[in-house]
Amino acid sequence: MADPLPSWNDGAAKSAIVAFVKATTDPASKDFVRQEDRIATFDQDGTLWVEHPMYTQLAFVLSRLAELAPQHPEWETNEPFKSTLAGDLAAFANFTMTDLETLVAASHAGMSTDDFASIVNAWLAKASHPRWKRPYTELVYQPMLEAMAYLRANGFTTYIVTGGGQAFVRTYAERVYGTPPEHVIGSSLETKFEYDPDGKAVLMRPPKLLLYNDLAGKPEDIYLFLGRAPLAAFGNSTGDQQMLEYAQAAGGARLMTLVLHDDPQREYSYGPEAGQADTKFGAFTRALYDQATSKGWVIVSVKRDWKRVFAFEP
Amino acid sequence: MADPLPSWNDGAAKSAIVAFVKATTDPASKDFVRQEDRIATFDQDGTLWVEHPMYTQLAFVLSRLAELAPQHPEWETNEPFKSTLAGDLAAFANFTMTDLETLVAASHAGMSTDDFASIVNAWLAKASHPRWKRPYTELVYQPMLEAMAYLRANGFTTYIVTGGGQAFVRTYAERVYGTPPEHVIGSSLETKFEYDPDGKAVLMRPPKLLLYNDLAGKPEDIYLFLGRAPLAAFGNSTGDQQMLEYAQAAGGARLMTLVLHDDPQREYSYGPEAGQADTKFGAFTRALYDQATSKGWVIVSVKRDWKRVFAFEP
Repeated sequence: MADPLPSWNDGAAKSAIVAFVKATTDPASKDFVRQEDRIATFDQDGTLWVEHPMYTQLAFVLSRLAELAPQHPEWETNEPFKSTLAGDLAAFANFTMTDLETLVAASHAGMSTDDFASIVNAWLAKASHPRWKRPYTELVYQPMLEAMAYLRANGFTTYIVTGGGQAFVRTYAERVYGTPPEHVIGSSLETKFEYDPDGKAVLMRPPKLLLYNDLAGKPEDIYLFLGRAPLAAFGNSTGDQQMLEYAQAAGGARLMTLVLHDDPQREYSYGPEAGQADTKFGAFTRALYDQATSKGWVIVSVKRDWKRVFAFEP
Repeated sequence: MADPLPSWNDGAAKSAIVAFVKATTDPASKDFVRQEDRIATFDQDGTLWVEHPMYTQLAFVLSRLAELAPQHPEWETNEPFKSTLAGDLAAFANFTMTDLETLVAASHAGMSTDDFASIVNAWLAKASHPRWKRPYTELVYQPMLEAMAYLRANGFTTYIVTGGGQAFVRTYAERVYGTPPEHVIGSSLETKFEYDPDGKAVLMRPPKLLLYNDLAGKPEDIYLFLGRAPLAAFGNSTGDQQMLEYAQAAGGARLMTLVLHDDPQREYSYGPEAGQADTKFGAFTRALYDQATSKGWVIVSVKRDWKRVFAFEP
């Protein structure tokens, strides 16, 4: 039989994933789960694609605000716009939730849902990552794409559960991850049903946050969308802690996994270990590491567990 | 080939449904739609099951409030409890949104998501409809079950999009309609992620409305959950108007359908026609009828189009 996870090195992480899939899909297993309940959830930033030097969606915000800035001279002096337009990541890391909502409102709202999707698609087509000089949509982790495909081949439905914007991620999730729009759960603005001048129904995006899908928001929104806990949950930061706790609390065979970024040569190194960078983009604290260890969560080391990080590597 | 809709009389409604399915699933058709985008949405009350003499979930509210009333002597004198406990449907029809939220808060909130599901299941097991003396879950329209099954057999995913409570409907939707929890979109309370005394993750239900999934809320929530308009939409009242408009506005071959309750012998008669009852539970106004006629929406007459209404009929 062909290896379903060819970009993974043999080791504890790969073994745990394969053992979990076998245990939950073999009808003879005591941990067998019917196909309808095989739900796997994946964080996006830092779990499925690169989140450094900043979240990709923040790069979109910077680009969009720069485009709009000429019509808003007041942004040159007013925060949080001033620091954001200056690309001051240290300032950004200290922004309050209200600051972030202000930036999202200015960059993501005030147009129809269709127009927003067009704006995102146009940006993705031209933007590139500062280190690899490739489209952001190529900076996805090949081992995680294989894990998603392996789960789907075994009857799982794979969901992206992201702190990022649901409407943003849905524009590319199907072609990049194989997940259709209805399998993407993310932070969301409200929409408002209106009629255009021709009387045609249209959904507008007012600047009002409906779902903040991070931390405790992840299990809350998983319940809202799916009505039950995931059987397998993959994350990489403190923003995923509650999602993994929710999965584990549901009992039975469950797989909780955290990606640890510890490979500065092939990607980045940030986390709780000596010499690793501290960061606000995907914080993996010592407390989270200890919790993972004590609760039997699987820690995936980029350095040790991944044979290949990106599909474009030789 | 066996008739996929045996409980439907031959006529314009049945023909329209069959023609739409053929047009959107035949690869040679100019209106072919790939399987991933074959989304059909169904209102529940009055479209999939009986909504008279009152919404089934309102019967649950009455029962639940009666159970809790001994601990709330103030309900005997305070509205909206007083009229509700007295079963005063005329008063109920005039309740404001705030009144309804108050009733929902008292009857649906303040417990964990698991406990709420247990309460609903226990009620459904013992409750029965006043006219047919059968469990409410048997008062589903056999022709609509066949339409759902027919669509699914042709690659459609069927969603329930209900003004009723999402957590309420999800308790029985899979066994009654064949729709798993993630295919039920409904009005929703917020949930709150907490830890129980043993430190285990649990989701609680505070008395706070998150989604009001009726009228314009239907297309807004369909977009929130699915990211796009349905290819086919089925409803029966003014609460479904915007959902059907949203489907039609997306263009291409779309099926918009409204069930008209015009059979007092086998079920109920309420709607815009002479002699039909006016009602707050599933209003089908003259304006909606005219809109349906002018826009090519399919009107399903219970009396003429359904050979059989319920599965338990001979």
